[in-house]
Amino acid sequence: MKSLLLSRRDLDFLLYEWLRVDELTSRERFAEHSRETFDAVLDLCEQLATRYFATHNKKSDANEPSFDGEKVTVIPEVKQAWDAFAQADLIAMSMDQRLGGAQLPATLAQAAFAWFSAANISTTGYLMLTMANANLLARFGTQEQVEQFVKPMLAGRFSGTMALSETQAGSSLADILTRAEPQRDASASGTYRLFGSKMWISGAEHEMTDNIVNLVLAKIPGGPAGTKGISLFIVPKYLLDENGAIGERNDVVLAGLNHKMGQRGITNTVLNLGEGAYTPGGQPGAVGYLVGEAHRGIAYMFTMMNEARLGVGMGAVALGYTGYLKSVQYARERPQGRPVGAKDPSAPQVPIIEHADVKRMLLAQKAYVEGGLALLLYCGKLVDLAHSAQSDEERDSATLLLEMLTPVGKSWPSQWCLAANDLAIQVHGGYGYTREYDVEQHYRDNRLNPIHEGTHGIQSLDLLGRKVVSRGGAGLAALGAVISRTVAEAGALGGQPAEHASLLDTAWQRLVTVTAEMFGSGDIEAAMANSVVYLEAFGHIVVAWIWLQQELAAHGHSADFYDGKRQAARYFFRYELPRTAPQLDLLASLDRTTVDMRADWF
Amino acid sequence: MKSLLLSRRDLDFLLYEWLRVDELTSRERFAEHSRETFDAVLDLCEQLATRYFATHNKKSDANEPSFDGEKVTVIPEVKQAWDAFAQADLIAMSMDQRLGGAQLPATLAQAAFAWFSAANISTTGYLMLTMANANLLARFGTQEQVEQFVKPMLAGRFSGTMALSETQAGSSLADILTRAEPQRDASASGTYRLFGSKMWISGAEHEMTDNIVNLVLAKIPGGPAGTKGISLFIVPKYLLDENGAIGERNDVVLAGLNHKMGQRGITNTVLNLGEGAYTPGGQPGAVGYLVGEAHRGIAYMFTMMNEARLGVGMGAVALGYTGYLKSVQYARERPQGRPVGAKDPSAPQVPIIEHADVKRMLLAQKAYVEGGLALLLYCGKLVDLAHSAQSDEERDSATLLLEMLTPVGKSWPSQWCLAANDLAIQVHGGYGYTREYDVEQHYRDNRLNPIHEGTHGIQSLDLLGRKVVSRGGAGLAALGAVISRTVAEAGALGGQPAEHASLLDTAWQRLVTVTAEMFGSGDIEAAMANSVVYLEAFGHIVVAWIWLQQELAAHGHSADFYDGKRQAARYFFRYELPRTAPQLDLLASLDRTTVDMRADWF
Repeated sequence: MKSLLLSRRDLDFLLYEWLRVDELTSRERFAEHSRETFDAVLDLCEQLATRYFATHNKKSDANEPSFDGEKVTVIPEVKQAWDAFAQADLIAMSMDQRLGGAQLPATLAQAAFAWFSAANISTTGYLMLTMANANLLARFGTQEQVEQFVKPMLAGRFSGTMALSETQAGSSLADILTRAEPQRDASASGTYRLFGSKMWISGAEHEMTDNIVNLVLAKIPGGPAGTKGISLFIVPKYLLDENGAIGERNDVVLAGLNHKMGQRGITNTVLNLGEGAYTPGGQPGAVGYLVGEAHRGIAYMFTMMNEARLGVGMGAVALGYTGYLKSVQYARERPQGRPVGAKDPSAPQVPIIEHADVKRMLLAQKAYVEGGLALLLYCGKLVDLAHSAQSDEERDSATLLLEMLTPVGKSWPSQWCLAANDLAIQVHGGYGYTREYDVEQHYRDNRLNPIHEGTHGIQSLDLLGRKVVSRGGAGLAALGAVISRTVAEAGALGGQPAEHASLLDTAWQRLVTVTAEMFGSGDIEAAMANSVVYLEAFGHIVVAWIWLQQELAAHGHSADFYDGKRQAARYFFRYELPRTAPQLDLLASLDRTTVDMRADWF
Repeated sequence: MKSLLLSRRDLDFLLYEWLRVDELTSRERFAEHSRETFDAVLDLCEQLATRYFATHNKKSDANEPSFDGEKVTVIPEVKQAWDAFAQADLIAMSMDQRLGGAQLPATLAQAAFAWFSAANISTTGYLMLTMANANLLARFGTQEQVEQFVKPMLAGRFSGTMALSETQAGSSLADILTRAEPQRDASASGTYRLFGSKMWISGAEHEMTDNIVNLVLAKIPGGPAGTKGISLFIVPKYLLDENGAIGERNDVVLAGLNHKMGQRGITNTVLNLGEGAYTPGGQPGAVGYLVGEAHRGIAYMFTMMNEARLGVGMGAVALGYTGYLKSVQYARERPQGRPVGAKDPSAPQVPIIEHADVKRMLLAQKAYVEGGLALLLYCGKLVDLAHSAQSDEERDSATLLLEMLTPVGKSWPSQWCLAANDLAIQVHGGYGYTREYDVEQHYRDNRLNPIHEGTHGIQSLDLLGRKVVSRGGAGLAALGAVISRTVAEAGALGGQPAEHASLLDTAWQRLVTVTAEMFGSGDIEAAMANSVVYLEAFGHIVVAWIWLQQELAAHGHSADFYDGKRQAARYFFRYELPRTAPQLDLLASLDRTTVDMRADWF
């Protein structure tokens, strides 16, 4: 039976027929791998996700973690899933062999991990945070920190969190108030005590692992104002004794749980540090260990954050994808209505997949989720190229493109794969609105993605205010260059690919012109005011390019699968890309409607 | 303190400054009313909604009705709210005086009822269904039926439901299987026994009222196939004795409750008829009384359905409106970040309402919810004009416009006021995603509206396949005529109104041209395939016209309120109306992408 989580056929197409990730094995970093090991990982992940994660997705939604004032209770299936994942050595799947990792390409690891997100985004969250935490510490931590914290995380004994936000500082990290005071006495030298409160910290309390490794942003008193004064600390739930065994309870405690619309299975916490709930070493204050250098915490965190943003994008894709597959199945099995123009009311009803409007809703979903998956895997390939580059030039080139595409890779799937979930409900009709079916939960779960790890608005400022303008526009030029190559290649084929190439080329050239006009105007306030509109137009044009690439990869092949790709591409170019024209007109006009609006007029 | 449910200032503007509903009192039907009585009703409804409905909105979401196999338990606040509403004589507020009604204009009644929907859409659902049921029976029932069932409903002693759908027949009513067998023996002459099962029946089981009056669609054996063989029956939970007192339990029982994503406070049931759970008169079968003539049930139901569709649209508006007001309040109070270009990280944070992107999200909500409210009140006015017409011509003219606008009045707010709720969450950031705030519930509650009372797709078929083409396009022409008048009036003013008039005129003319091209092509399959795209473009153009009318009503007035109207109109014309251009291009191309798509290609 075909999986209703993701399509392995599509993954194989994208990974091998399009991105040719098997060719990565000719590079030193991935030399020990082969298509066989890649396939084995994908097989394993599909199996584990299906068996241990999908099976409690509804249950963990209906039975969210509860806090009795002392302990947090999570349904036992979450721990069983965690263990199955950890025992398969998947936590370290993309990490270096020197740390015991499998050193898989990021492209592969992302595809593999997507199975778990599609099956159960909440339970997967515990793992995703732990992996991101471990990656950060492996890169910026000391050897001792790696031994003490990273290795137990990779073994599944400890879990990890990322503690950035505070109630008064979500999108504006410069305003965090948590402070870290260096300890002067000899026995505690080199350590800090942290005082403050953190908000929205997922996975920061549970009993599933021996310890929880919180990575906490805080300010060391006397440092620079703003983000330049932020440092990064390890604040474990339990301190370790000198042998690495669990020691004293640290002064970091749960203040309460947040109750979300979706993604209910993962604890989302308010965390108090240094309130004196515990007194490690005989005094209050959460013991923390500085990561890297003081005041460089934001830079370290953003290395991880860029990864996490692509991870959020892939999570959105995974939720969109499983909803799509379920609505296709429903539409094949649900008889309702008759073809347009049918006159005989006693003729049998047809499956709704035969109605053009249902096909429209399914095609839209297909275009969004397969387009999103392809986009994220393309980004993964750039990570791999940068990571295994054989020259500085190759690394720079991959990094430059990756930086341009990261805000799109985060925001586009968060918007459109949520739209896919909305359509999946609509295809199901009233049934889709009930908790007896799956798709309403996917919709609720997916609604988080345009918010966390940098909202839609924050991504748009990153794209327009930073990525587009940095290095004299080198990123935009680099993206333009690769798009031109696709356009040329598709143009040479004639027919539908050439038609799409021409539409893409026109849209891209207009985007470049409009971008120049916006910054040339000198009215930066107006230019930045519509940054979200820019992000959305930019994203749709990028995904049109991604679809044209898929069309090229499908070219010359005939089978239902490839016809489906061609038809989805056609859908995207006819129904979706044209949305960007009025957006670009608006941007070109440097419209001041929102700037001129006054608070008193609402 | 200003209400966070609806804006009374906006209601007053729309009702009096724009629609001039006070002038309706010059008509015989409304002659006993005055602006004072209208205002008193609005005051009363705001107070009751705030006191009895809003207060248990979260509670009823978190404690949905439960069924122990015998009884359904609903939290007691629902009954208290029901009683408060009934005791204020509001159930009959728009009904004829001969039935004890207040004979209020529909425009007023809709505005008044919107307060309850904004406060608690689930509890309001019980009332809305009862009112729709009573309206239908008052119009098509016998005098006896009115006495037995309508009057107790108007007094709040009985409640009502609408039982149309079955598991195998949701959008396709022609396929219902419930059968109604005429009773031949003398004692039961004129009655029927019903056998079958109904799905999605809201309010069909609870203990709040003495009786539940189900209006059930069923087929009398031997009748015509399809919708022409459907009849309408009253199937009360309890039969009445000859004095109208509660008698035997009827054989209509709850098979189970559906569990929805939102609107959780109202029971949504599967109902079994004639399974022998009870044996009224000594035998199984649900006793039913025919309403009107046999085989005309669909026509009766659709009279009510058109009302219900506008009611659904208003419910969507109300949910969007309260979310909008709450997000404005949040944005005023939430400090976060600094203006674009601010360099000093130690400067205080500004309220997020100062950020252009937040203003964009609030303006979009304002444009959607105030536009939707205005659209529905305009439709209400057409109901009143038809209802109190002084000539056949006046009645026809109002009815024609109302028929054109009904699918838009149902679908446009269901789509865009849901989008408003999505933006309300986004303005709240992470907080908006939690159940500690209100907006996530509004978003979940509102997601039902594009589904029930005819899905988005069904509305589009109604518009394009029926309303646009009927009477030789008279509806489209009538709408064009009123739009032209607005365009002329606004054009004469110059400035922003004239600019908007020109944009509206262009869009409307193009729509008319494209409509002609679609039907002129002869390819009806392709023309109908994109009916949803047509509905969406049509809806946006209609709402642009509604906004231009508001702009005209605000013209010459200076105050924050009017400046807000002008700016929201500007937002709509610059950000929203342009979306229709690529939609109309697609429609004009008679694109066959969805028609050509094959089920096997998914």
